[in-house]
Amino acid sequence: MPVAEASVSPLDWAFTRSDVVYDVVHVFENGFFRLVDHLDRFEASMRARRLAPPETREEMAAILHRCVALAGLRDSYVAMVALRGRPRIAGSRRIEDCDNHFMAYAVPWIDVIPKDVQARGAHLWVASRPRVPDASVDPTVKNYQWSDLTSGLFEAQDHGADSAIVCDEAGFVTEGPGFNVFVVKDGDVRTPDRGSLHGITRRTVLELCGAMSLKASVAPIHRDDLEGADEVFLATTAGGVMPASRVNGTIYGNDRPGPISLRIKEAYWQMHRDGLHRTEVIRDM
Amino acid sequence: MPVAEASVSPLDWAFTRSDVVYDVVHVFENGFFRLVDHLDRFEASMRARRLAPPETREEMAAILHRCVALAGLRDSYVAMVALRGRPRIAGSRRIEDCDNHFMAYAVPWIDVIPKDVQARGAHLWVASRPRVPDASVDPTVKNYQWSDLTSGLFEAQDHGADSAIVCDEAGFVTEGPGFNVFVVKDGDVRTPDRGSLHGITRRTVLELCGAMSLKASVAPIHRDDLEGADEVFLATTAGGVMPASRVNGTIYGNDRPGPISLRIKEAYWQMHRDGLHRTEVIRDM
Repeated sequence: MPVAEASVSPLDWAFTRSDVVYDVVHVFENGFFRLVDHLDRFEASMRARRLAPPETREEMAAILHRCVALAGLRDSYVAMVALRGRPRIAGSRRIEDCDNHFMAYAVPWIDVIPKDVQARGAHLWVASRPRVPDASVDPTVKNYQWSDLTSGLFEAQDHGADSAIVCDEAGFVTEGPGFNVFVVKDGDVRTPDRGSLHGITRRTVLELCGAMSLKASVAPIHRDDLEGADEVFLATTAGGVMPASRVNGTIYGNDRPGPISLRIKEAYWQMHRDGLHRTEVIRDM
Repeated sequence: MPVAEASVSPLDWAFTRSDVVYDVVHVFENGFFRLVDHLDRFEASMRARRLAPPETREEMAAILHRCVALAGLRDSYVAMVALRGRPRIAGSRRIEDCDNHFMAYAVPWIDVIPKDVQARGAHLWVASRPRVPDASVDPTVKNYQWSDLTSGLFEAQDHGADSAIVCDEAGFVTEGPGFNVFVVKDGDVRTPDRGSLHGITRRTVLELCGAMSLKASVAPIHRDDLEGADEVFLATTAGGVMPASRVNGTIYGNDRPGPISLRIKEAYWQMHRDGLHRTEVIRDM
């Protein structure tokens, strides 16, 4: 059905308890990018939250192909969602009485940061409200519980910034609303070791750095380190590698995307054009 | 429309970001209980999350009356929900571009703890995963982001308990999935001062304690205090005052609901029968 007609019941615990996990894979010129990795992560998220829709992994993958085919899109953002559902037994409040279900849809390409903003470099704001700790909600289980990220967006909006960087209680950078954060300093690339999704784009960036002989690490980044960085960029499925040009009052590299960020961004899209990690969309299923 | 036909778009940020607040008021024998207080809290939640559906407070109240009337219920659980919506401008990722909207429904009475379990006293499990801190997500803003509470339910289920008590990182009791917690010790009633919703039933219990000359306070309760308590009970709109009889290995009062818990429960329902805080449902709007 058209996505505009798709619906979630307001009584589904996926809504009333945000008891739901999801993943998003993108399609570039008729090919999924790292579909296997997204399905792996989606399965891990479902296991972590004890969600078990009836479809097998292979059936889910076939549904994703079919969504893209039916939507008629060559470039797309494809979501897979596992929902808790409602109890089979009327009135039950027991999780184990719920029928879990699977939902998927393909929509036109979405950039977390609009393309014109990417071109000048995103302006980011470091949020004052701390990220939910990993001990309370595992950030590697991809979820819709964005309250802390949305609070960061409120602050960013109030300061005229495009998006937010959220830190933990101790002041260490975690991630932003829908993206991982990277900093570049003296030619070395670093991304936080805590409070953040293990992004597939993040992984791709780390691999690309290896191939480009850039030293890259997953390590603590304090908010105070942002001011002294040479470059900052963001990584996400919904947009790829997106350079920033400002964080709060700090202006990087003449207020433009930095050279290493741009090299990684170019390499990321070259990888797509080279057909690496590509799964051709099957259109006649 | 019938609630089974109601739908939330899977693209609504109320779903994909759990960017939504809600409240729930109950109807007892054709009368809302503390409707004004629920509307006050709902308005405060909306303000805190910058949600502004087009309906006025009076229009929202009229919709709640109409939902109950159309559902033909004398006893009901009535939800009001403010959703972020989707951006007016295609592709926008800006919160301020979203059209917020309001949703309401009336369903038959729901007990968070089933009535047979209430009769023997709920068996509770103290969750090991800590509650999301107040600094990250304000628990007084009624929200659907239940991941930590759901994790507590998983643990409760694994240990054969009916529901969970969730503590903060420092080990202080906060609340459970859908209810506030109270302990009774040497005749004094106490409920946590942190990490929890300011429940309307909680407030009612505190007021009733005053009227019954029971000393009641909002104060820290450490998880270690639970073992030495004389009684434990829960408070929520969806069930009222619900005594517990066990917390982990501790069995209270001969494995039955305690006498003070039962007195407060009886006073709570007597208040309903006496028509206090009552707003008659208008059925011909």
